[in-house]
Amino acid sequence: MKRQMLISSLSVLTIAGAAIAASQDAPYPDGYRKWQHVKSMVIQEGHPLHGAFGGIHHLYANSKAMEGYRTGQFPKGAVIVFDLLEAPAADHAITEGKRKVLGVMYKDEKKFSATGGWGFEAFVADSKSERAVGANAATKCFGCHTAQKQAGYVFSAYRP
Amino acid sequence: MKRQMLISSLSVLTIAGAAIAASQDAPYPDGYRKWQHVKSMVIQEGHPLHGAFGGIHHLYANSKAMEGYRTGQFPKGAVIVFDLLEAPAADHAITEGKRKVLGVMYKDEKKFSATGGWGFEAFVADSKSERAVGANAATKCFGCHTAQKQAGYVFSAYRP
Repeated sequence: MKRQMLISSLSVLTIAGAAIAASQDAPYPDGYRKWQHVKSMVIQEGHPLHGAFGGIHHLYANSKAMEGYRTGQFPKGAVIVFDLLEAPAADHAITEGKRKVLGVMYKDEKKFSATGGWGFEAFVADSKSERAVGANAATKCFGCHTAQKQAGYVFSAYRP
Repeated sequence: MKRQMLISSLSVLTIAGAAIAASQDAPYPDGYRKWQHVKSMVIQEGHPLHGAFGGIHHLYANSKAMEGYRTGQFPKGAVIVFDLLEAPAADHAITEGKRKVLGVMYKDEKKFSATGGWGFEAFVADSKSERAVGANAATKCFGCHTAQKQAGYVFSAYRP
């Protein structure tokens, strides 16, 4: 009984430790709305990605990520944000609605060697703590991004 | 004959002088793509503004204009850019196409007292010199913006 409690306690500690490490590796990208706007796109009903990414999305890049868009090589510390909002259509116009999810890519070859050198996270709606990817980056994100290997695993290109 | 030539020459000089003054008051907003992205919208066929503004547009603000969005008072030197791109729709997605026009508002109560304290200009496509507004700001721009007097003549609001 004592031993089982000890194992349980250790497990809890290990899980808590892993969560803290993941959080430090993939922090909420504070201030990203002041970063450079890269490009935008609207994904509508009927699109194969509508379930996951339906709405209007904007990509924002920190200065290291902008270096990556320019040179094709994303350096350590590059962060790209995928800001997905609802896109209500009415009266022949599409406007921006509530935030659905904030996807983030963090470049660190060493930390994220299993997923192309990128860490992936997604913050639900306007939450800075509710995470939708966590330990599932390989299946939830990298599975698709691996198709972009020739572009450093990045789908977007800077629109001048 | 000589007198007519002189008048013509003077007219040319006057027009050239006015163009230079206008150009200095309303310069091309170099570097605006690094300014803060304010919000975006898509205007589709059937919308009453489709003829003028059909496509996807993004608003960008310099730091003084951001102060205006925050406080409701746009200070001298505030510049807002309306970046209008074609918005081709295909396969249930709307993407960004070629630039149609770059609209710009410049705040200077003194210089632009006739149009709510804002100067207005529009640069055609990717040109930094081909101007679509020129001396016609009152009719081409301010006529509609005057409806926004309570918001400092600005239609857009910052989307967090």
